[in-house]
Amino acid sequence: MKNSAMVMQIQDPASQRLTWYKPPLAVLVIKKVRDSKVLQPFCELVEWLIQEKHMVVWVEGAILDDPLLTGDKRFTKIQDKLITFKDGRDDLTDKIDFIICLGGDGTLLYASLLFQKSVPPVMAFHLGSLGFLTPFQFDNFQEQVTNVLEGHAALTLRSRLRCIIVRKDKTEQEISTFKSSQDPTTNILVLNEVVIDRGLSSYLSNIDLFLDGKHITSVQGDGLIVSTPTGSTAYSAAAGASMIHPSVPAILVTPICPHSLSFRPIVLPAGVELKIALSPDSRNSSWVSFDGRNRQELLHGDSLHVTTSIYPVPSICAQDQIADWFDSLAECLHWNVRKRQKCLDELSDLTGSGTEDSAIEDIERGMENLES
Amino acid sequence: MKNSAMVMQIQDPASQRLTWYKPPLAVLVIKKVRDSKVLQPFCELVEWLIQEKHMVVWVEGAILDDPLLTGDKRFTKIQDKLITFKDGRDDLTDKIDFIICLGGDGTLLYASLLFQKSVPPVMAFHLGSLGFLTPFQFDNFQEQVTNVLEGHAALTLRSRLRCIIVRKDKTEQEISTFKSSQDPTTNILVLNEVVIDRGLSSYLSNIDLFLDGKHITSVQGDGLIVSTPTGSTAYSAAAGASMIHPSVPAILVTPICPHSLSFRPIVLPAGVELKIALSPDSRNSSWVSFDGRNRQELLHGDSLHVTTSIYPVPSICAQDQIADWFDSLAECLHWNVRKRQKCLDELSDLTGSGTEDSAIEDIERGMENLES
Amino acid sequence: MKNSAMVMQIQDPASQRLTWYKPPLAVLVIKKVRDSKVLQPFCELVEWLIQEKHMVVWVEGAILDDPLLTGDKRFTKIQDKLITFKDGRDDLTDKIDFIICLGGDGTLLYASLLFQKSVPPVMAFHLGSLGFLTPFQFDNFQEQVTNVLEGHAALTLRSRLRCIIVRKDKTEQEISTFKSSQDPTTNILVLNEVVIDRGLSSYLSNIDLFLDGKHITSVQGDGLIVSTPTGSTAYSAAAGASMIHPSVPAILVTPICPHSLSFRPIVLPAGVELKIALSPDSRNSSWVSFDGRNRQELLHGDSLHVTTSIYPVPSICAQDQIADWFDSLAECLHWNVRKRQKCLDELSDLTGSGTEDSAIEDIERGMENLES
Amino acid sequence: MKNSAMVMQIQDPASQRLTWYKPPLAVLVIKKVRDSKVLQPFCELVEWLIQEKHMVVWVEGAILDDPLLTGDKRFTKIQDKLITFKDGRDDLTDKIDFIICLGGDGTLLYASLLFQKSVPPVMAFHLGSLGFLTPFQFDNFQEQVTNVLEGHAALTLRSRLRCIIVRKDKTEQEISTFKSSQDPTTNILVLNEVVIDRGLSSYLSNIDLFLDGKHITSVQGDGLIVSTPTGSTAYSAAAGASMIHPSVPAILVTPICPHSLSFRPIVLPAGVELKIALSPDSRNSSWVSFDGRNRQELLHGDSLHVTTSIYPVPSICAQDQIADWFDSLAECLHWNVRKRQKCLDELSDLTGSGTEDSAIEDIERGMENLES
Repeated sequence: MKNSAMVMQIQDPASQRLTWYKPPLAVLVIKKVRDSKVLQPFCELVEWLIQEKHMVVWVEGAILDDPLLTGDKRFTKIQDKLITFKDGRDDLTDKIDFIICLGGDGTLLYASLLFQKSVPPVMAFHLGSLGFLTPFQFDNFQEQVTNVLEGHAALTLRSRLRCIIVRKDKTEQEISTFKSSQDPTTNILVLNEVVIDRGLSSYLSNIDLFLDGKHITSVQGDGLIVSTPTGSTAYSAAAGASMIHPSVPAILVTPICPHSLSFRPIVLPAGVELKIALSPDSRNSSWVSFDGRNRQELLHGDSLHVTTSIYPVPSICAQDQIADWFDSLAECLHWNVRKRQKCLDELSDLTGSGTEDSAIEDIERGMENLES
Repeated sequence: MKNSAMVMQIQDPASQRLTWYKPPLAVLVIKKVRDSKVLQPFCELVEWLIQEKHMVVWVEGAILDDPLLTGDKRFTKIQDKLITFKDGRDDLTDKIDFIICLGGDGTLLYASLLFQKSVPPVMAFHLGSLGFLTPFQFDNFQEQVTNVLEGHAALTLRSRLRCIIVRKDKTEQEISTFKSSQDPTTNILVLNEVVIDRGLSSYLSNIDLFLDGKHITSVQGDGLIVSTPTGSTAYSAAAGASMIHPSVPAILVTPICPHSLSFRPIVLPAGVELKIALSPDSRNSSWVSFDGRNRQELLHGDSLHVTTSIYPVPSICAQDQIADWFDSLAECLHWNVRKRQKCLDELSDLTGSGTEDSAIEDIERGMENLES
Repeated sequence: MKNSAMVMQIQDPASQRLTWYKPPLAVLVIKKVRDSKVLQPFCELVEWLIQEKHMVVWVEGAILDDPLLTGDKRFTKIQDKLITFKDGRDDLTDKIDFIICLGGDGTLLYASLLFQKSVPPVMAFHLGSLGFLTPFQFDNFQEQVTNVLEGHAALTLRSRLRCIIVRKDKTEQEISTFKSSQDPTTNILVLNEVVIDRGLSSYLSNIDLFLDGKHITSVQGDGLIVSTPTGSTAYSAAAGASMIHPSVPAILVTPICPHSLSFRPIVLPAGVELKIALSPDSRNSSWVSFDGRNRQELLHGDSLHVTTSIYPVPSICAQDQIADWFDSLAECLHWNVRKRQKCLDELSDLTGSGTEDSAIEDIERGMENLES
Repeated sequence: MKNSAMVMQIQDPASQRLTWYKPPLAVLVIKKVRDSKVLQPFCELVEWLIQEKHMVVWVEGAILDDPLLTGDKRFTKIQDKLITFKDGRDDLTDKIDFIICLGGDGTLLYASLLFQKSVPPVMAFHLGSLGFLTPFQFDNFQEQVTNVLEGHAALTLRSRLRCIIVRKDKTEQEISTFKSSQDPTTNILVLNEVVIDRGLSSYLSNIDLFLDGKHITSVQGDGLIVSTPTGSTAYSAAAGASMIHPSVPAILVTPICPHSLSFRPIVLPAGVELKIALSPDSRNSSWVSFDGRNRQELLHGDSLHVTTSIYPVPSICAQDQIADWFDSLAECLHWNVRKRQKCLDELSDLTGSGTEDSAIEDIERGMENLES
């Protein structure tokens, strides 16, 4: 065998498409709560799924307590046909084939929370304006859901970060047990980012960053964001990072207001393990939060371990991986929105002359240069 | 006398207002050339200035050759009443009381070129969309010009940079003569910026920066921008600098694609003298351009000297110094235009909970967190 | 009188020098507390000031309680000759001619706190490494202090921001009283910056910014920094702003992690008045802190008013305004520190060829291109 | 089969290691030319490879003309045993098992140029300071080369971009032929980046960017950089992008001085196809260059097609993928180099107080706050 034949496999994002191994039957519908605008679409959708598609519809039990719903005639008609579960008590693993979200990026974050291991494909509708995670318009939902159920859809596998906080009194044995378990009290999955910040302290945080066990650098500043590519358009973007397409297998590390002019954000391969801990000389503790939730203190001796979870959120595209992402960049972040910057055009009109001219000729001909 | 009474004088920008020491009589009208849209406003304005305001109207001689104008009946009626001058030959100093610009930021740059010493107040109309330098709308020009002629107007004094290229064979004596003269062949005034770049060379520029005679730093990268506050919203903004209100007496120094992560732009007091030269070890020459014009090579031993000119461009405000500037930031650069970023709002809706909660409680109450 | 003679006054920073109207007699010595390294220099300095220079030395009363000092023989010898005052109770106005700081940038911030109105000239020694505010080395302090006492020194007038929090129940009358008073409980002077942030809330802050009474923009993000040029190298630099020389009369406004890609920092004239308040639709309160201290909540209806104080901190230069600043940029922030980036040089060595060559010629001659 | 079992494969970068399918025999040695410092190491290495390791050593024929070499006794001794090839004429495919580079990042770029298809593993020595692409020190080269020949080494597969310029008169048929060929006159491989810029024109470039055939955005500015992760630490870093580890399968798109405040760099999946062309309304042409070489004009109607090549450069690590990269970030770019920023520490010392204090208490206790 030859030595030199080194070839890379490069996956075309367009090749990643939804595949149903058996027809999806059980559908979980997640809706934004206490928002009256969602009520009508929710009832329409659920009724149609049950009656036209003969699917089994699951909902979170607590939504039945929403007075907005229970007072609605349309809902009472379908209420008995719904299967409910208790969030945090009932295990949905293997019970759900398909998820439909109604109402905002938050619903997809919630879907992610429900599934610690593998997540069924998610189809997310925005009811107001387009979101990063909610690409579908509700108008002709019947046609769109039918398309998806028939398997005509591109898929973005959104990676999640698996975060484990190890308190200082833990042994190697215990740490290893944590890492091999999926217990949601110690293993927290984030779809956007985990943030370490200085809380209310006026002292700067001093945080050590380790990669695969080696000390890489120390962060002095307001904090540090470790995010997925999905999270690169959220808090990380605000902190100055480049935006990463959700299909890139990577972890983004971004300092928050670092007290070093040269601390640029970095993009790491998805397969690394990060460890974050207070620097031994840090005067105060730090705080950790997960997708903006579950805020807790990180004390001297504690550490936060972050890896990429093998269980992504399979998010169904409205168009395809590329078009959906750029549409949301433009709509949500006004990325490179310009309306043809006339002001600068004008300047370049005048100034577009005279690469080779002497100063005086240039001034003499100045008037001509004013034309566009 | 006491020692400790140290008090600063702080000028309220609102206090800077137009003052006519005698009624303005001679008005110079500058218009964008070869743009048919400007024709009608130009004729209307000139006719009105002559007939209603009894002013003496000056125009650049070359515009009389514009076939668009000479073929226009309205213009031929007023043509004889215009006083013309030859750009670059006739000296306008002390002849003009007031300037009106029609058509784009370029017209104001041109006005700046015509006056090496003091510049009469400039009133600039945009005919398309608002520009950084052209705050007035043309619709009701009669009312607006009348207001200005009566002295009801705020003024922004836009500083200019005086740039002198000293070739390597010059003696101290000659340099000093250059600096004391106002000869436009050696003294070039810029309203936006002077740029030093590497031209087509693939080698990086190596440029030395001196302040008041002392070596400050060396630039390795695509080049360097030295700009006025007015220029901070032009090329400097593209290169990453902060935006500076034109009333701040300052000089902005911005590297272009510097090969140092820590080379942040800096803002210097208007009173310093900068000198820029190739580093002795630079392998190739650099190129200098002035407001985008008059591009010329900078060789080993040459130097570029930059100071703030004592002759600003007095630019008349449509509203006031502050409102005009922020309106142009929004219109021309979409500065902080957001349309309420709903996408991020949604995220914070979900994630706005749980500062104090344990992980499991947080997940249990997840559904409630989805409300807005 | 002519109309067009518009000329700007541009101050050369080198012209700002220390002037004693009468020989300075009363000197206030401020030292870092509970740092044993400061002890020896402090005693040496005070003894020398009293015995050689026959000056009256003032110190803060609390330092006499420091066991480090009271147990030191050298100190007990001079202790009786010191004049003490109680911070916050005794008014130092008009009593001090000159201030000497020993030990770190914090001592200068403290000096600023002591003087609500005019501040005597401050000479600040760093005892470890150079600081932004402490340019003098202690080694040959006798010579250096003598020089300063003889008036041989450049001066940087560091502007301060005057901050007033107006609670929501205040009348226009009361606000106006606040503004005309110098009461330190309502008028807080900052030398670096005032920060408005979201505290521990996971919701984004929504803050409205007004200039001279007009709404300018809204900030959605982690917060907002309003800083002096002195503060531009502190927290503002960490948040991404350009660095401003302390002699530029300006106010720097920098968003903290703004959720808008286009919210670039801005530099405003020192004479404006800023008002900051929660947006009416903001879901949560914000927090204000002054030079990192005195943190307090800003509720709906409250507002923060910021102007430039007419009382700067006159900070004595070790060399001059320009050299001192660039030395501290290099030392404290590693600004554009590069050590000649050899790695990039190497790349440009190879790649410096072939502007005009065809691909194949280029490859053929590739070997030659490897030379430097 | 179940629907929901969606699992991602995440590659641990540490798992990528060098494997020899048969013992490497033919070694190509590339050295920096006309650098006398390389001479001695080159002779030592070649002699050792031939005599101790019994390898067949290849060199580029042109180096035999280097007078520095031919005049060297040590070299003349081994000269006859070298096999030479003519760069651009002889095809090295399948002839070389292993490459050793001596002297700088440029030598690795040159190695990349020689192999249009698969590239043998490259071991690169820096002779001066550490480079991004040259991790090995020469001191104990025998031990290190032996290690590598025995297969004890981690490997970074550095992806390359395959760039094809399609001139405007080409048919779909011809384009498709280009894309399926590997002809180096039309297919140019870059290891760092391909750059599109405005050349000497003072007009801004207007460039359209297409992804997988769809128009994504237009660039108005100095130009656009399309780079590999390897190139993210070169010109892209200078233009403000985040740094990407070379193992991340991605393409980085970075605008150069864009005239839009919101045009942030973006990171795309390696599998996309980019097309770049002048906007129809662009007034002037653009220029394209490949790893800084082979500069050529891009006219209206021409287009540049960029995909990730399936043939990476397998670059042998000195330590491992992670440690090598962070060492070069620190050494070459001073990434987050801080020396513990004492200046800012001092500030936070003072300001670390008083989260809850009233203003007056805070001032009273100010002295205590000065301690560290």
